Amino acid sequence: MEGKKSVLELLHSDYSVRTLLATEAFWLENKQTLKGNFDLHLCSPQELEAVSSFKTNNSVLAVTEIKNISIPKHLKGLTLVLDSIKDPGNLGTLIRVADWYGVENIIASKDTVDLYTPKVLQASMGSFLRVKVSYTALEDYLKNISLPVYLAQPNGENVHDFSFEKNCLVLLGSESHGVHVPLISSVKKRIGIPSYGRTESLNVAVSAAVICDNYRRTNSHPMLG
Amino acid sequence: MEGKKSVLELLHSDYSVRTLLATEAFWLENKQTLKGNFDLHLCSPQELEAVSSFKTNNSVLAVTEIKNISIPKHLKGLTLVLDSIKDPGNLGTLIRVADWYGVENIIASKDTVDLYTPKVLQASMGSFLRVKVSYTALEDYLKNISLPVYLAQPNGENVHDFSFEKNCLVLLGSESHGVHVPLISSVKKRIGIPSYGRTESLNVAVSAAVICDNYRRTNSHPMLG
Repeated sequence: MEGKKSVLELLHSDYSVRTLLATEAFWLENKQTLKGNFDLHLCSPQELEAVSSFKTNNSVLAVTEIKNISIPKHLKGLTLVLDSIKDPGNLGTLIRVADWYGVENIIASKDTVDLYTPKVLQASMGSFLRVKVSYTALEDYLKNISLPVYLAQPNGENVHDFSFEKNCLVLLGSESHGVHVPLISSVKKRIGIPSYGRTESLNVAVSAAVICDNYRRTNSHPMLG
Repeated sequence: MEGKKSVLELLHSDYSVRTLLATEAFWLENKQTLKGNFDLHLCSPQELEAVSSFKTNNSVLAVTEIKNISIPKHLKGLTLVLDSIKDPGNLGTLIRVADWYGVENIIASKDTVDLYTPKVLQASMGSFLRVKVSYTALEDYLKNISLPVYLAQPNGENVHDFSFEKNCLVLLGSESHGVHVPLISSVKKRIGIPSYGRTESLNVAVSAAVICDNYRRTNSHPMLG
């Protein structure tokens, strides 16, 4: 994990940080509030930039344990299900959208880009610490779930008038390929975002946000806590 | 402009293409439908990749005239106003969002990233051919406009209940810095997207989409044509 803001959030989360590479300035500013059983290596901004995967990172880098996140048995509220989302920026933005709308769980196909890719973490802006992202074989998983699965696709029912069940799953595929055919048999209804222009599709994170927004507008049940 | 789909859209738009670098395969497949007064250079996929700014482009590249887009005097429907949007991916996605929701005009501050940056064009997926993106000194422009200006910001009036005037401007700033202070005096109302989680902000293109979606849901007036 890289960068001041993200590393501070990480250090205050339930992730176990093993190693911290920090400048003296970062350490002096933050050591009072930092707990944890990590190895500290003080280094220069130049040394940090040399090992960083970002263009500008001159304060801190953390090495942390990866969590193996399993899917909760009882999903509450809206859950996003992602099929084959390959772009790390899209996954990161999706996680941030989920966090904004209080979506607790994202369930991704095994060929979706890995959560712990630097670009995913960066685009998620710390939201990966709050939203549980788990990976599974979607076809089997969706076949055996009792909650309704709604597929997001251009010609589905107008999301503005859609009746969401309180606990439900929204399945999103890639913009260019849609979802894999074997998943379709698990779909109960299709949700569409009405278009008023001429582009063929919306970015997947944008679509997810519009669907979450309409879910929240029509379902005022609090999901958190 | 690079890539098969985007170049084909460009060639069917009102942009004047000057030069086309194409593989023989692309040319044979498309020459029947292509009109225009451009120079054609046939080349190998390897040569194309060598001059391309994208990782994979093995069919076509077009050199086109840049348009100087001026702001229409009479803005219709919803217009997006962007202050200091620096990320090319965000601007491209914003243009695509505008196209989806039939927003005809985007007005950007002079320090917003240039429309003709390769990453902007790529992320806009051809939508820049339909949405007019113009650049101006926003402070003076907004002072003299008679339409209402709504500022998108976290604590504004709930967008779900917001009464949009049919013809209006929505002002969006960067996620980290908001809009420049001198613009605030032109703002009539503030629109907020309600949050149900703990992240501090939404991506600017995601915010724009949610606002456009709510505008469209409550204003069924067609904007196009």
